[in-house]
Amino acid sequence: MDAKEKKLEQVIRLAHGNGGKLTQELIRGILLPRFNNSFLAPLNDSAVFEVGGTKIAFTTDSYVIKPIFFPGGDIGKLSVSGTVNDLTVMGAKPLFISCSLIIEEGFPLSTLKKIVSSIEDTAEKAEVKVVTGDTKVVEKGSGDEIFINTSGIGIVSPEIEHLSSDRIEIGDLIVINGTVGDHSIAVLSQREELGCGGSVVSDCAPLYGLLEEIRLYWRYIKFMRDPTRGGIAGVLNEIVQGKKFGIKLWEKKIPLKEETLAFCELLGMDPLYLANEGKIVFFVKREKADEIVSALCGHSLGEKASIIGEVVADPPGKVYLETIIGTKRVVDMLVEDQLPRIC
Amino acid sequence: MDAKEKKLEQVIRLAHGNGGKLTQELIRGILLPRFNNSFLAPLNDSAVFEVGGTKIAFTTDSYVIKPIFFPGGDIGKLSVSGTVNDLTVMGAKPLFISCSLIIEEGFPLSTLKKIVSSIEDTAEKAEVKVVTGDTKVVEKGSGDEIFINTSGIGIVSPEIEHLSSDRIEIGDLIVINGTVGDHSIAVLSQREELGCGGSVVSDCAPLYGLLEEIRLYWRYIKFMRDPTRGGIAGVLNEIVQGKKFGIKLWEKKIPLKEETLAFCELLGMDPLYLANEGKIVFFVKREKADEIVSALCGHSLGEKASIIGEVVADPPGKVYLETIIGTKRVVDMLVEDQLPRIC
Repeated sequence: MDAKEKKLEQVIRLAHGNGGKLTQELIRGILLPRFNNSFLAPLNDSAVFEVGGTKIAFTTDSYVIKPIFFPGGDIGKLSVSGTVNDLTVMGAKPLFISCSLIIEEGFPLSTLKKIVSSIEDTAEKAEVKVVTGDTKVVEKGSGDEIFINTSGIGIVSPEIEHLSSDRIEIGDLIVINGTVGDHSIAVLSQREELGCGGSVVSDCAPLYGLLEEIRLYWRYIKFMRDPTRGGIAGVLNEIVQGKKFGIKLWEKKIPLKEETLAFCELLGMDPLYLANEGKIVFFVKREKADEIVSALCGHSLGEKASIIGEVVADPPGKVYLETIIGTKRVVDMLVEDQLPRIC
Repeated sequence: MDAKEKKLEQVIRLAHGNGGKLTQELIRGILLPRFNNSFLAPLNDSAVFEVGGTKIAFTTDSYVIKPIFFPGGDIGKLSVSGTVNDLTVMGAKPLFISCSLIIEEGFPLSTLKKIVSSIEDTAEKAEVKVVTGDTKVVEKGSGDEIFINTSGIGIVSPEIEHLSSDRIEIGDLIVINGTVGDHSIAVLSQREELGCGGSVVSDCAPLYGLLEEIRLYWRYIKFMRDPTRGGIAGVLNEIVQGKKFGIKLWEKKIPLKEETLAFCELLGMDPLYLANEGKIVFFVKREKADEIVSALCGHSLGEKASIIGEVVADPPGKVYLETIIGTKRVVDMLVEDQLPRIC
């Protein structure tokens, strides 16, 4: 057992699945050393490889969200959107997805039908086809209603095949296409019946259409990620890890619903760690950032787009926030959280 | 609700996952009508489509086997073999797979490491790369140790891209590459501590190498399937469904371990319904069947290859068995069984 492995706890904890520090340790400590290959190593949202001269992106995600229906969506819509978005942020046009169900014995068929319809509706909107699938059933108590895995295949356009975190430079600006944390707030308010945040609906949506809207600017986009589990803080920290640059975020520029803010204040949560399912974080060439924001605002899924930060020289490898009152604080990767099964 | 849907029970039962009649009803009654497209419609083990002039096969499977370690393998080896074999039977050389884990809180990291090593070992043997992945954690009691989804991508060789059940003709012979039911017996004897069948190990193995061994005969292979859940009876019944031909099996020609037979007699089980994880059922041109069997026998995974049946005109749409004592009986699709979570 090497030092990296020793650092890990002896059993899996919920926090191993939160997209934060423990997830990273699990991936880097146990999975990556064994699956070592050049496709997986960059830990992007999809693997990209060539088949017969065509650049293909390939991705997978299992969805274990609870509850399976939430304001703005359900596990079916989520399972298509999430996978389509993992392809989208690699610059790939999503084409084909798989759909594999693990269903708990006793699950109502009427509910299954609703979820399957939702998968199909979302696939149609996203212009992808569900081409292969699988269904497994586990005994009552050995699962929790339904888990869905979708894997996806897309084709990377030559116009945008350059995307890589290695292309990020000091001075680049960071853009997001709308309000942060909507998905987590919608799910939590449903789950806990908290009586606040109840008007927030999940942002869960397939985003390739939005990316097409700004096709004119593809050459100015250097890298993209979708800030799901672990939130903006999670993806930005992954990006700066081991890099010679840092990221500065402006709190006042981060789009946030009032209800989200109220919810976070009440529960002592930080919106930067909340999951999003209809957002992309773009790293773009500074001079084009304003135009890109304007272009995003022209699409229904980008109306609240905003420049939220910049790539800075100092401190390298860190993400920090310039708060509304002018102070600075480091935004570290999530360690513990209260949001298991948010996707 | 249409008539097909009405026929379905109101909740999911374990038998919906056994690869038999209820699985078919679920797929044809609920899933297919909603995901209707030409890629999914044939219900093959993989979808096949063209990308930039290259024929690609794409497949997915979730593995929920219990116990996760069994004689001859574990859930990791199974999850790679199963998906590689789904590509193989479509004539595709497996290239890339995804690996998505749903882990129950409290699962030992040491066990996870064993499984991940097993995935990597099997991937190496099968010459596939694990290029993308995902890890989710669910609360204790909301899962059962670990579920694994693997999806796979392969390239279909022009030499064998003709595979289709539509090419099957009366007179074709049916070949299998070895003993039937080993996987089910190994898992069951481990699970139930039955004290019989204990020397049988699962046949779980990636099979593309075996297919390559008989490359010379690819043009004479009309169709292939891997008889996993639901066994030989399951796949053969799926194939004859709605067709103008039937299938006749010769009981005495079906390769079977003595222990399997003893186990089946003791428990009143039929080996034709047992799951296999290292077998292919080949439909081949009659004149070439003997040569193909000889060629298969030259590979360690085909030593007990045998011609087990033939495609007949009458009765159409049915599978029947000519028993050792000379009687005939219809081999229907499985309805109920005692083998949940066999893969």
